[in-house]
Amino acid sequence: MTPETTRPLDALNRAKGKRVIVELKNKKSFVGKLQAFDIHINVVLEEAEEIVDGEVKRKLGVVFIRGDTIIIISPEQK
Amino acid sequence: MTPETTRPLDALNRAKGKRVIVELKNKKSFVGKLQAFDIHINVVLEEAEEIVDGEVKRKLGVVFIRGDTIIIISPEQK
Amino acid sequence: MTPETTRPLDALNRAKGKRVIVELKNKKSFVGKLQAFDIHINVVLEEAEEIVDGEVKRKLGVVFIRGDTIIIISPEQK
Amino acid sequence: MTPETTRPLDALNRAKGKRVIVELKNKKSFVGKLQAFDIHINVVLEEAEEIVDGEVKRKLGVVFIRGDTIIIISPEQK
Amino acid sequence: MTPETTRPLDALNRAKGKRVIVELKNKKSFVGKLQAFDIHINVVLEEAEEIVDGEVKRKLGVVFIRGDTIIIISPEQK
Amino acid sequence: MTPETTRPLDALNRAKGKRVIVELKNKKSFVGKLQAFDIHINVVLEEAEEIVDGEVKRKLGVVFIRGDTIIIISPEQK
Amino acid sequence: MTPETTRPLDALNRAKGKRVIVELKNKKSFVGKLQAFDIHINVVLEEAEEIVDGEVKRKLGVVFIRGDTIIIISPEQK
Repeated sequence: MTPETTRPLDALNRAKGKRVIVELKNKKSFVGKLQAFDIHINVVLEEAEEIVDGEVKRKLGVVFIRGDTIIIISPEQK
Repeated sequence: MTPETTRPLDALNRAKGKRVIVELKNKKSFVGKLQAFDIHINVVLEEAEEIVDGEVKRKLGVVFIRGDTIIIISPEQK
Repeated sequence: MTPETTRPLDALNRAKGKRVIVELKNKKSFVGKLQAFDIHINVVLEEAEEIVDGEVKRKLGVVFIRGDTIIIISPEQK
Repeated sequence: MTPETTRPLDALNRAKGKRVIVELKNKKSFVGKLQAFDIHINVVLEEAEEIVDGEVKRKLGVVFIRGDTIIIISPEQK
Repeated sequence: MTPETTRPLDALNRAKGKRVIVELKNKKSFVGKLQAFDIHINVVLEEAEEIVDGEVKRKLGVVFIRGDTIIIISPEQK
Repeated sequence: MTPETTRPLDALNRAKGKRVIVELKNKKSFVGKLQAFDIHINVVLEEAEEIVDGEVKRKLGVVFIRGDTIIIISPEQK
Repeated sequence: MTPETTRPLDALNRAKGKRVIVELKNKKSFVGKLQAFDIHINVVLEEAEEIVDGEVKRKLGVVFIRGDTIIIISPEQK
């Protein structure tokens, strides 16, 4: 069972420090550890990798992603 | 008969905990249990699946969807 | 004669409970009974149908439509 | 001579009750009697007609047009 | 020498009552006398003409142009 | 060394009265003396020229550029 | 280990004075020393270079980049 959520940002809060996938409007995806986010859904990933067609295209270290370019954020599944 | 609604978010509130379909501007759709939403229409689905051409493309678990990418949200019909 | 209107939302208010057509920026249209709307022009239709090329493509029951995807809303004519 | 205007909405106010042409970003145009508008430039036309290539494509009666889809509004010339 | 300006809207204010060219995101241009503008850069032109490829396509009289469609506004040069 | 900056608008302030290049989302560029700007990044250039493929396409005198069409602003290098 | 972050702008703050890559929605990239940013993610780079296909296309000195055109900002890796 998922713990009770009342607001969408609670779900992001629970994902902090975990690896997430972030998909952007320009069809790019980034995978990394969710370090920070704010109400605009600006996010910072660390140990970030850009993914193209399921392959790691490049490693970016820390990356700030502007919220208005984001479609979805989803914790990586084990 | 549908219960009396005065605001659109009341309809989302009644859909909480139920399976909904969420269609995005980029032509993707997600189906999952509506866990949370806010006034920006950011939503969180659990047990989420991405649907392409009526087929399940992948299972995502929990997914945060940024509101400004959403076109419609509709409870699945029985 | 149409009753005196001072604000656009008054026209939507008069359409509540009546069937309206909602046309979206992505060229989709929905027809349904206008259950609710807000100042962002988010709307909820019930007994909603998606219309493509004048034909009913699917029946959706209740549908929440995000306001920023909407071009026009017009009461169905008798 | 046009009466003194200080704000753009004054020009819309003077057009109230008169036939105007409304051109949209999606290249559609509507002609109708300007019944109402607000600061978002949401407008309501009555006796509205959709115009395509200078021809009346359909008659819509009352139509609510969301402001952010509008490019120009101009009173019909006599 | 141009008089001292501190804010961009001062430049529009000095253009009031003069003929300006307004270029839009959809590649249309309008030329007319600047009657009014507001902080959203909504503008009203009078004696307005739509210009296509340097030619007058049509005369519109008074035209309200929604600010978010505008790229530039420039006073006509003598 | 560049003087200490704390906010991006300080950099625009230092460019006031100097020639800058302004690149727009529609791939147009303007070069001119930066006369004014505001927090929306609306700018006014004087002695402005539109540049296409590195060539002066036309001289515009004073031009108001709406901020939301701008990508970058950069002082011309000596 | 990365120091504790609570907000995304903290990550930008730590990158101040360091070389960052800024990728834009129009597929352009700029590399330069991060001099300033604000809550809209407007940024100023100094010693900036525009990068196309991994090659330096031009050197710009100081460049102001409007926040709404930005997708990601990432400190250059050593």
